[in-house]
Amino acid sequence: MKILYVDKHAIKEAFKNGEINVVVFGLGKLGLPLAAVIASKGARVIGVDINERLVERINNGENPLPNEPGLGELLSRVVGEGKLIATTDWEKAVKKGDVYIIIVPVVVDSIGKPKLDIIFDVVEKISLGLEKGDIVIIETTLPIGTTRRIAKILEERTGLKCGEDFGVAHAPERTMSGRMIKDITGSYFKVVGADDERTLEAVGAFYEMINSKGVIKVKSSITAEAVKVFEGVYRYVNIALANELAIYAEKKGFDVMEAIRVANTQPYSHIHVPGAGVGGHCIPVYIRFVLYDALENRISLQLMDAARRTNENMPLHTVLLTVKALNEIGKPVRGSKVLIVGVAYKPHIREYYNSPAFRVIKELREMGAELFVYDPIATDEDLGKLFNVPRWKGDNVDVAVILTGYPEFAEMIYEKKVQVKAIVDGRRLLDPEKVRSLGYVYKAIGLGL
Amino acid sequence: MKILYVDKHAIKEAFKNGEINVVVFGLGKLGLPLAAVIASKGARVIGVDINERLVERINNGENPLPNEPGLGELLSRVVGEGKLIATTDWEKAVKKGDVYIIIVPVVVDSIGKPKLDIIFDVVEKISLGLEKGDIVIIETTLPIGTTRRIAKILEERTGLKCGEDFGVAHAPERTMSGRMIKDITGSYFKVVGADDERTLEAVGAFYEMINSKGVIKVKSSITAEAVKVFEGVYRYVNIALANELAIYAEKKGFDVMEAIRVANTQPYSHIHVPGAGVGGHCIPVYIRFVLYDALENRISLQLMDAARRTNENMPLHTVLLTVKALNEIGKPVRGSKVLIVGVAYKPHIREYYNSPAFRVIKELREMGAELFVYDPIATDEDLGKLFNVPRWKGDNVDVAVILTGYPEFAEMIYEKKVQVKAIVDGRRLLDPEKVRSLGYVYKAIGLGL
Repeated sequence: MKILYVDKHAIKEAFKNGEINVVVFGLGKLGLPLAAVIASKGARVIGVDINERLVERINNGENPLPNEPGLGELLSRVVGEGKLIATTDWEKAVKKGDVYIIIVPVVVDSIGKPKLDIIFDVVEKISLGLEKGDIVIIETTLPIGTTRRIAKILEERTGLKCGEDFGVAHAPERTMSGRMIKDITGSYFKVVGADDERTLEAVGAFYEMINSKGVIKVKSSITAEAVKVFEGVYRYVNIALANELAIYAEKKGFDVMEAIRVANTQPYSHIHVPGAGVGGHCIPVYIRFVLYDALENRISLQLMDAARRTNENMPLHTVLLTVKALNEIGKPVRGSKVLIVGVAYKPHIREYYNSPAFRVIKELREMGAELFVYDPIATDEDLGKLFNVPRWKGDNVDVAVILTGYPEFAEMIYEKKVQVKAIVDGRRLLDPEKVRSLGYVYKAIGLGL
Repeated sequence: MKILYVDKHAIKEAFKNGEINVVVFGLGKLGLPLAAVIASKGARVIGVDINERLVERINNGENPLPNEPGLGELLSRVVGEGKLIATTDWEKAVKKGDVYIIIVPVVVDSIGKPKLDIIFDVVEKISLGLEKGDIVIIETTLPIGTTRRIAKILEERTGLKCGEDFGVAHAPERTMSGRMIKDITGSYFKVVGADDERTLEAVGAFYEMINSKGVIKVKSSITAEAVKVFEGVYRYVNIALANELAIYAEKKGFDVMEAIRVANTQPYSHIHVPGAGVGGHCIPVYIRFVLYDALENRISLQLMDAARRTNENMPLHTVLLTVKALNEIGKPVRGSKVLIVGVAYKPHIREYYNSPAFRVIKELREMGAELFVYDPIATDEDLGKLFNVPRWKGDNVDVAVILTGYPEFAEMIYEKKVQVKAIVDGRRLLDPEKVRSLGYVYKAIGLGL
């Protein structure tokens, strides 16, 4: 099935009838649900991953992502029907694709340079199987211009011409953990961008089979890249704004949360929530794509760069609040027992990338605090290997520093089940009046009272 | 009627029965509609303004704000019934008030220092009539902390005690030109903040008579100030973000408007629209309240300050696009005929405060351009006195620079009624493909194509 050369209707018919072969690179939390959905709509899917154990589990019909509603049933059906096959054997897989989808992660290094080698490695592999009429789609969120670099690599490796012999499109995933199936099949429009009309039409038809909300085709691969990066940049900059307003509120003597909540009763106002730091693989990463590009190309983006500095300072600001809380109970940091509440960057998601806990723990440890962690999702291995901090067993502590907004910890505080004198709230998890009425010293980001 | 000493229900009864005397300071575009609405709900209103001609017109039942739907009928009714009397005689007026409302404008000087002298002057006047049980309400948007300064001035001048003998509250207007009556009577919740419970309750009851949507009482006058300032800061910073994304798009080769529009199909994304500059009395002013305070008190607010720099650079960026457009038609700026489209900061609103036209005109004039203005709302006097640029009579020009998004100008372009070779679009008023297909050279903010 050479899908670049047939019309929209032929693509849709072929998709339904299992005459399109899709090779999905990356069977992680983003790729596996996508592969399962595509298979469930008719196409034949080969999923490629380097993780042998994962591949085996998938082929046994097991669901490695139990927190994704609907994925379990979908997987057991499509694997059972032979519609989805997982493999580590990429050499075989690349011979079979009509459509190649890349959905492996991109991260940034310590100075914010995007690490695209995983993507380019997959591209090299695809080039060995790429044939006339095939299409390559990148779903991974990309630094602007990367899709065009990928097209160029494929041209160089194959001698074929992009836009004529094969197609390359960017179709960024717009999904959230815990709602992958819903998001892939139609929470939002699917955005598709390509640099030639034929590819754009074909990829549009492809996603119309998957996303019931519909497809938005944009003018270029660059535009599609920008759309996804912009969504993240908007959120990142607005978190920075909330953080700066929080700092200001602390100095001026009011509670930023009250002001934000009331300001947002105006329909044009969407002020975000301040916090101890921006974690995860998305929001703090996409801004770096832009900033690194700006650095390399000498484009002055002072607002986004200021947002970065503001957000990256929040773990330190949380440490400062901790020092102040300890001070208020007459303790220096050295020798104080500090309970870190949450090392995962989000409640109940076992992920630590960019978690503010790294910085907060480092600073407090350097000042001589004795540290413990409360985190119901983190394993002992995670705590030991990543943070080198023991799990809290309910010991008396001097201060609890909330870095992840676990509602069950709030309950423990309200029920006075935590033997602690002071609380630093880096997530505005607790009600200030309620906590103080229970006798705790309470400091919180943006609470200038 | 000493409203500080009676309960909610008594206030509402008295309001309805015309037993509350309200003195409104400032009968401009914000104050006059407010005065009329209050009078229409029952209270007796004396409106004070220094503009004799305005006072006379109001007392004749004339409507000086014809663009405010509903105001004309309201005014002729409340003036006819003797419920609203306008006066310049503040000495008489201040003897009569139970409630004093201040709604005179606050602007900032050239380095961003808020000019509060008009407010403090009104406060001094009120102090001469303030009696036990009276309440002073400031509706003007204020730098954070100003309400408390006003309370202190009143205490010093009268020897009375705020919160016991009299009350001071901040109840920021949340209105837009052209929809004042609707906004005052209930587009949004009315936000009320005071530093004592009694004043808060009384002022809450007062506004419940006016605003059908309801009243939100916040913890302090500072919080109420922050709410209103935050709404403006959110918009200002997000316009700066849109501008920075626009600059980035110009460098990278895509149309920022397409990326923004598509990004905003995601419900969490509310990216704003870039433009040639942020004008008016609100959005570019409130951010200055915060930044000046930060400067004075050595609070580092780098994000908001970067937003200011980004937005304040946009007129210059528009000049740069103009130079490029002229260059593309082979012309230097010197001697070129440049049509400035719009000097009002918003279409059809005859206001020029912070209009980007000032800077754009200055720069182009310094480079030797011959300038003309198209602006259907600006009078010849405005053009002469404020801008020293003649009105365009339809002469041939080299480039049109759109600074105000007049839809009628777009029509003139599409109908080829403007003899011009190049267009610079500082408001993304025009459709790029359509304009170019008509043969114009077209440059626009954020259009990297």
